[in-house]
Amino acid sequence: MTAAGPGRPIGVFDSGVGGLTVVSAVLSRLPRERIVYLGDTARVPYGTRSAQTVLKYSRNAARFLLRHDVKLLLIACNTASAAAFPGLRSELPVGVLGAVEPGAASAAAVTRSGEVGVLGTLATIRSGAYERALLALIPSLKIHVQPCPLLVPLVEEGWNDPADPVSQLVVRRYLGELRDRAPRLDTLVLGCTHYPLLRETLQLVATELWGHPVTLVDSAEAMAVATEKLLATQNQLELSVGAELLHPTARLRCFVTDEARVADVAARFLGRALPQVELVDL
Amino acid sequence: MTAAGPGRPIGVFDSGVGGLTVVSAVLSRLPRERIVYLGDTARVPYGTRSAQTVLKYSRNAARFLLRHDVKLLLIACNTASAAAFPGLRSELPVGVLGAVEPGAASAAAVTRSGEVGVLGTLATIRSGAYERALLALIPSLKIHVQPCPLLVPLVEEGWNDPADPVSQLVVRRYLGELRDRAPRLDTLVLGCTHYPLLRETLQLVATELWGHPVTLVDSAEAMAVATEKLLATQNQLELSVGAELLHPTARLRCFVTDEARVADVAARFLGRALPQVELVDL
Repeated sequence: MTAAGPGRPIGVFDSGVGGLTVVSAVLSRLPRERIVYLGDTARVPYGTRSAQTVLKYSRNAARFLLRHDVKLLLIACNTASAAAFPGLRSELPVGVLGAVEPGAASAAAVTRSGEVGVLGTLATIRSGAYERALLALIPSLKIHVQPCPLLVPLVEEGWNDPADPVSQLVVRRYLGELRDRAPRLDTLVLGCTHYPLLRETLQLVATELWGHPVTLVDSAEAMAVATEKLLATQNQLELSVGAELLHPTARLRCFVTDEARVADVAARFLGRALPQVELVDL
Repeated sequence: MTAAGPGRPIGVFDSGVGGLTVVSAVLSRLPRERIVYLGDTARVPYGTRSAQTVLKYSRNAARFLLRHDVKLLLIACNTASAAAFPGLRSELPVGVLGAVEPGAASAAAVTRSGEVGVLGTLATIRSGAYERALLALIPSLKIHVQPCPLLVPLVEEGWNDPADPVSQLVVRRYLGELRDRAPRLDTLVLGCTHYPLLRETLQLVATELWGHPVTLVDSAEAMAVATEKLLATQNQLELSVGAELLHPTARLRCFVTDEARVADVAARFLGRALPQVELVDL
């Protein structure tokens, strides 16, 4: 228990910078924790790689973060989660949280109609990971998936303002298709770390289209909740007094594998200015 | 001369299916030629790979096409062209055409104001390949580049109809930025094999924004023209009577390295139904 005690940071990794939405949620929810983040920006996107390659990349990332003595590893990337979560969980000497299960658990707890929608990239939707996780919790759920290939490039282009007519139109088209197939749905999982940046637009359009309340489940937020629970269970929550007075940026160390265009984009995902980004070769 | 005589097909490769716009242009312009196409769909997109990796992948593709006895190799992918064209041209026993030079040559021939715009992906614009090719032809040209990251996902999603309000809005935003910087521009290079599918929208919006005629240079069309010239120079144009009576699809053999979702998307790029797609492991 002493070796696993407070003082050690949480490790978070993603194929790119989208996982910074998870970092942002964790830093806000757990104001005493420190985070070491790794964005494998040289090899993004993982969605077009084979599962075997993604597992190899994820092991590289995990090994790097373990060298920074992390007490817990968050896989803040749906593709890496689907391919590497079971493997990493069984082989790593620290706790591991994937990107899919926490959001699925929140959605299963929230729905009243028993009909849940899942928004994700083509790769995530094709993997069937959310259906498996949701049905493992409540086998009677009706799950409606909607691939939204344009949302990631839209967010990366920075066109995610709720007043932006392009993002409004695109969101209206995807959610409109889903509304036609699933009028009784009352819960929508944002199954991609990029989507929290479109949260406001998604909420506005969903409310308008369904005409009844639709709860958005932000998988970044759900990972922060699951992180708190797991650390509490393992008696690893940071307790040192004064740490919560540190600015969130001072509690974050940020590594990337390729520097091109990272800082400006990353700051939007984090929701604040980034600390100095450090370049690393895995 | 006899070994290089008629009868042999033209080889075309791309990281994905976008290069089928080049195939379509060549099949239309040269109604007697046959084409062997390779789409490296298992490793798309090349834009996020290092130049060294792209060169390696391009050599794999070239070797595969040479085994099909091609008489000429077209690199129908801007990223692969930027990274591999000089190398492949010097080491292959057949002629090689890249994706950049033909479009640059057309634009240099067409402009009257001496101001040319280039639309492309982030990777293509960052490579500076069009600027180099254009300035090598006319050193006094003023070149205005505009990265358009959303256009490829838009086309792959199939939202490229000129009446589609999303594609209209997105094109209006990119071209609007360019218009503000370059009001005297009279020529626009479509520097990506996906963009010909948005040609109609681009032409409508460009005419409206600039208020004077703007010529769109379709780099797929430019590659077809360059192919005809090069084959004529090398005395390799197909002359056999009757071949032109074959339906274009009957003159195309199509290989991919991963089958997922290829056929439906590919048919849109080719502009007609695809022949049976064959799966290959490079």
